[in-house]
Amino acid sequence: ITEDKLPVQAKHQTDEQTRILAEKVFAHDAKDEDSRDEISPFDVPVDCPIGEIEMVQHQLHKETKETVENRKKRMQRGPIAVTLPNIEEVKDSEPIESATKVQHVQYHNVPDFQRVAITGDYTSGVTVEDFELACKGLHKALTIREKYMHLSFQRFPRTTAHYLRTIENKRWVLEAEMHPTFTPPVKDGEDPFSSQDLPENLSYSCEMKDGVVFVRAKKDSAKKIKDLPFPDLPTFIDDMNFLIALIAQGPVKTYTHRRLKFLRSKFNLHEMLNEIEELREQKINPHRDFYNVRKVDTHIHAAACMSQKHLLRFIKSSARKDTDRLVFNSKGQKLTLKELFEKLNLHPYNLTVDSLDVHAGRQTFQRFDKFNAKYNPVGASELRDLYLKTENCINGEYFARIIKEVASDLQEGLYQHAEPRLSIYGRSPEEWPKLANWFIEQRVFSPNMKWMIQIPRIYDIFRGQNFIPHFGKMLESIFVPIVKATLQPRDHVELSVFLKHITGFDSVDDESKHSGHMFCTKSPTPEQWTQPKNPSYSYYLYYMYANIMVINNLRRERGMNTFLFRPHCGEAGAVTHLLTAFMTADNISHGLNLKKSPVLQYLYFLTQIPIAMSPLSNNSLFLEYAKNPLLEYMQKGLMVSLSTDDPMQFHYTKEPLMEEYAIAAQVFKLSTCDMCEIARNSVLQSGFSEQEKIKFLGPNYRKEGPEGNSIQKTNVSQIRMAYRYETLCYELNLIMEGLKVSE
Amino acid sequence: ITEDKLPVQAKHQTDEQTRILAEKVFAHDAKDEDSRDEISPFDVPVDCPIGEIEMVQHQLHKETKETVENRKKRMQRGPIAVTLPNIEEVKDSEPIESATKVQHVQYHNVPDFQRVAITGDYTSGVTVEDFELACKGLHKALTIREKYMHLSFQRFPRTTAHYLRTIENKRWVLEAEMHPTFTPPVKDGEDPFSSQDLPENLSYSCEMKDGVVFVRAKKDSAKKIKDLPFPDLPTFIDDMNFLIALIAQGPVKTYTHRRLKFLRSKFNLHEMLNEIEELREQKINPHRDFYNVRKVDTHIHAAACMSQKHLLRFIKSSARKDTDRLVFNSKGQKLTLKELFEKLNLHPYNLTVDSLDVHAGRQTFQRFDKFNAKYNPVGASELRDLYLKTENCINGEYFARIIKEVASDLQEGLYQHAEPRLSIYGRSPEEWPKLANWFIEQRVFSPNMKWMIQIPRIYDIFRGQNFIPHFGKMLESIFVPIVKATLQPRDHVELSVFLKHITGFDSVDDESKHSGHMFCTKSPTPEQWTQPKNPSYSYYLYYMYANIMVINNLRRERGMNTFLFRPHCGEAGAVTHLLTAFMTADNISHGLNLKKSPVLQYLYFLTQIPIAMSPLSNNSLFLEYAKNPLLEYMQKGLMVSLSTDDPMQFHYTKEPLMEEYAIAAQVFKLSTCDMCEIARNSVLQSGFSEQEKIKFLGPNYRKEGPEGNSIQKTNVSQIRMAYRYETLCYELNLIMEGLKVSE
Repeated sequence: ITEDKLPVQAKHQTDEQTRILAEKVFAHDAKDEDSRDEISPFDVPVDCPIGEIEMVQHQLHKETKETVENRKKRMQRGPIAVTLPNIEEVKDSEPIESATKVQHVQYHNVPDFQRVAITGDYTSGVTVEDFELACKGLHKALTIREKYMHLSFQRFPRTTAHYLRTIENKRWVLEAEMHPTFTPPVKDGEDPFSSQDLPENLSYSCEMKDGVVFVRAKKDSAKKIKDLPFPDLPTFIDDMNFLIALIAQGPVKTYTHRRLKFLRSKFNLHEMLNEIEELREQKINPHRDFYNVRKVDTHIHAAACMSQKHLLRFIKSSARKDTDRLVFNSKGQKLTLKELFEKLNLHPYNLTVDSLDVHAGRQTFQRFDKFNAKYNPVGASELRDLYLKTENCINGEYFARIIKEVASDLQEGLYQHAEPRLSIYGRSPEEWPKLANWFIEQRVFSPNMKWMIQIPRIYDIFRGQNFIPHFGKMLESIFVPIVKATLQPRDHVELSVFLKHITGFDSVDDESKHSGHMFCTKSPTPEQWTQPKNPSYSYYLYYMYANIMVINNLRRERGMNTFLFRPHCGEAGAVTHLLTAFMTADNISHGLNLKKSPVLQYLYFLTQIPIAMSPLSNNSLFLEYAKNPLLEYMQKGLMVSLSTDDPMQFHYTKEPLMEEYAIAAQVFKLSTCDMCEIARNSVLQSGFSEQEKIKFLGPNYRKEGPEGNSIQKTNVSQIRMAYRYETLCYELNLIMEGLKVSE
Repeated sequence: ITEDKLPVQAKHQTDEQTRILAEKVFAHDAKDEDSRDEISPFDVPVDCPIGEIEMVQHQLHKETKETVENRKKRMQRGPIAVTLPNIEEVKDSEPIESATKVQHVQYHNVPDFQRVAITGDYTSGVTVEDFELACKGLHKALTIREKYMHLSFQRFPRTTAHYLRTIENKRWVLEAEMHPTFTPPVKDGEDPFSSQDLPENLSYSCEMKDGVVFVRAKKDSAKKIKDLPFPDLPTFIDDMNFLIALIAQGPVKTYTHRRLKFLRSKFNLHEMLNEIEELREQKINPHRDFYNVRKVDTHIHAAACMSQKHLLRFIKSSARKDTDRLVFNSKGQKLTLKELFEKLNLHPYNLTVDSLDVHAGRQTFQRFDKFNAKYNPVGASELRDLYLKTENCINGEYFARIIKEVASDLQEGLYQHAEPRLSIYGRSPEEWPKLANWFIEQRVFSPNMKWMIQIPRIYDIFRGQNFIPHFGKMLESIFVPIVKATLQPRDHVELSVFLKHITGFDSVDDESKHSGHMFCTKSPTPEQWTQPKNPSYSYYLYYMYANIMVINNLRRERGMNTFLFRPHCGEAGAVTHLLTAFMTADNISHGLNLKKSPVLQYLYFLTQIPIAMSPLSNNSLFLEYAKNPLLEYMQKGLMVSLSTDDPMQFHYTKEPLMEEYAIAAQVFKLSTCDMCEIARNSVLQSGFSEQEKIKFLGPNYRKEGPEGNSIQKTNVSQIRMAYRYETLCYELNLIMEGLKVSE
């Protein structure tokens, strides 16, 4: 087992100046967090004073530097020639071999449409120096993300990778592409909980080393596994500092801000010109419309996945049927369901959604603390324990039944899917076998659901109550059981079966809490982290990523499914959260704060990082509906999906995901094509398996651009696909041009 | 049969100056109509330049006039003492006999809450003269509405009537209150289409006289009916001119503008202070929450009452099951369903909501013309005829079945109701018996639906095609058959039975079309109206009102149900539309343009005219969602309800009415109390019968204020009811004070 051996990039030398700037930026950004102001409208000059100072200095410098010669050089250059990459696989798609303009591209399966071409000075508004500087920085940022995704079997877009290889004068090869492995769908007649095919046990042991699981062969081990990469913290910190400095750099901010503005205007123009043509494609597309395209609810918490009305109905019906059932057994007190209601002074018949009081209202806006209390029906933790928990006197039966009812609604609707999150807290390693046991005993399974594990960032609470001695222990409780089940699956049958159904990890909590600490090489290791203060968001994310990375490499080696890292990110708090996720996460939930950093927003665009947005949730907590950036992101071409977050708390109708789409469509006047594109994004973002994605999206879904789209399945017009693809290529091409200049 | 004999008000002498001003105002207002700008934010100074000039003159006059003495008089007056009226019926409610301040009021069934009291100069911002002038004008406006409602068995709020009687030094008596008569609900086992209880025929004849039905006893008539009132056109015109002048009067505009601003701020303050208390009332209210309070979809067109997905599913299933059914028979061409689809070059399996193309999109915004084309599925009028019409080769069977499916969804949901509109065009008197036959043959009945008749304002089209010689003929085709069925029910059995299920009339079309003509005494009579140009909105409304008024008096006399007049009004076009509706309509749909006239808005508040709002429809046609005045109206205390208008064209989910409420709740952050209040308003506004309203709202629903509310049924907090009631009383009291001053 060795350190990072991947050939992606040579180790980066710490630039002391970069580090100092990064720390300044971070300090400023963290300071901002406490003010829970509404997100200010997107505005470059005011979002970071330090960046601004930096920018002024740069301007001064530039003005003295830009010579007549430079100006001439800038003016001489003609309109940029955009090539669409000739990606190996797509030989039949008439790729353009030589540098021709994008507007002459012809695909064999895309109707003609009107393209927006820009002629004239392509760097308009920025000098050649600034352009080069920005492109260099962005390029490096792209290679950083590619490296960390590659290391952890997470995804990176093929188109972007292709441009990176071209810049390196290398060939893009399909074999180098990394993909997560998901468990294939359960076949008819197959038992989803079967433990038949578990691999044999290995003679390896596992321990924590600086907060990361470390696998070691035992002396008697016969079968060897390949050396696994191990994360390299100093390089990670260097990369992070580089990115922090980058997002505050004046010229890069100006450049990306302009590109994003351009992207939005270009989309609006595209839509004006081609709206009718896109619609025509959809109209003649037989049998498929928005109602029967596949959609995945990419972000939903299991404990709130039912509507308030559904929960109410379930409570009432259980209270009628299970009157004398023993449902409470704590501290010597045993209560039947009837007695429990009597103790709470409630009569089930009288219960209403008002008395249940689980819906977010005006009181919760900008008050995450009040919101969390809404998880307790009638304000009684006893009811939460009984109906919304996996561990209780009835072994979580009610909770399982409610989830299965939600699943059966999805199955009936045929085209809707969900990825609910179950919690692992990291207080004790026993949580895993208990959760796995609940999952299997209660047979919580649906072909329309994929499962994720959410880890609340609540070290400080556990430490405060002395449940754990240091942060390392929490990481150990979370990750060591997985490694053990991976190494010795036959000793951990239930957990091993459960893990087959898990597709990823989420990191959750109020992002506006706990910051100020900057993650750096001098930060205490998790074992040294004994203080009561919570580690920062970035610290949490790094250690989750590092462990998932090691685990994925091990599981791939063993032929098992791997996990994606899909944290909540950018719902509130510092923009550096989005930076850490850029380095570590396959995709994120929320992403509202991308509004605050044009550089990061542009990078999320270039790397097509999926963002599961929940505007109804935001509307109740952080941001008024009409101000939600969903529309803006979609227009710019960021890869957004729609999700419900907590139907129990936010939604009114029996179809929460449809409600989410309907309201977005109404408020933002989305076209059918927009909605189908968002639905397609949701499937791509999800943890559904290769086989399922082929079924939902078509056989070529891994190809990017119109070649990868089956309009028969997705109802996304090919014109839209071509527009998106060409637009991404155009932007990547600009970066390539910028790098050529500096050679 | 005599002219208006009602003692409400002496005939008004035409004031020539008023008439001239009214004409000026009208001309300006009509001119504005063609510009389809978005409704400008509520703003007094710019909404009418003529009013503005008038106002400047008034200001000049005032400044010279206001003497020191007057100022003293104004300052000496203390805070106004508001009394709640001692309405006969409510003897047990501890009404306040003497003038005490509102904040000391105690009801026996309202929890304590914090009241907003205003001390100091109550006319702040306006001089005593202006105050008096405004109150005088508003008082007269109230009496005008009361008169026309009274004449036609339409509704007028008891509280307002009580204040009017007090001003007249009269006693309010319950017996003088007029109510519409609705057919009681069908009892279990009873046939809703039974013709058993039709009254005997009378020997009366009916003819049109100046566009209004006129009933005359035949020579041989044995049984006499009481003389019926007949509308008095000159008085109506005088009243209308008075109101037109009033809404342009500077001081009245200023005063009402201030009052409305005050009402809104007061509500916000009330909500801040009492939100938690209101919620507490709802939480302890057993078994009732927003989901199981009754809601009526107060404005929905039968031809678009199903969702697009529902229509699609129905078309597909009929195409599967009825392949060889003869469904088309026109001009010698006979087609089976299969052949019809072949002719249209469609395969039912391939049909999608996109190809159906009935949903309003961005293309329809501000384009009512494009919107109307959306009524044709796949753009084919053949499909519209087959699936959405009552007259066709299959006797409207499909249309009836779709409606019954919608009804059965409502019945399953238990708490939702709807008032669909069926069309009578007035092209021929045969439309009535045909529609009645369809209704009865297809047994279109549901306890959750009440039926209305909509009359499109399309005289110009019929006249253009020479179907009718003059406007009077159209009125004749619409109203004479009703009178005949009322006089000789046993000769018109089906129509008589059908009319029992009709609760009101609607007037529909794009309000931004056809104006410019001012309705005045010199206007041609309907018989003289032979020109191809369409009459104005006001002309249409007057003649609909006049006929309904006569018919209601006749039907009441015969012991039959009466009709409400509930036109579309204020969706677009001139504000005078809202003025005409103020005089003639029990309640209206839309009312967006009340934003443009503070005087009318305040009058709609004082008379609590119900307004069925459809923000999702507006969002697709006239006004962006977030700019919809729904929230503002609700805050000010206007009586608003929520309705869907056309689910086929606007909604996405299976529960269009819930979608309408959910989006309003989300975008405007409505509280549960707000939503339940809107639901309660919808029942009050509806044509459901006395018996049903008692069941839905409680036995005292006709009482106003908290005494009339059953929180057990409506889930509206008593605090809210008290707030609304006291607020209305306060405003009416101000008017009473203003009149005292001038005595």
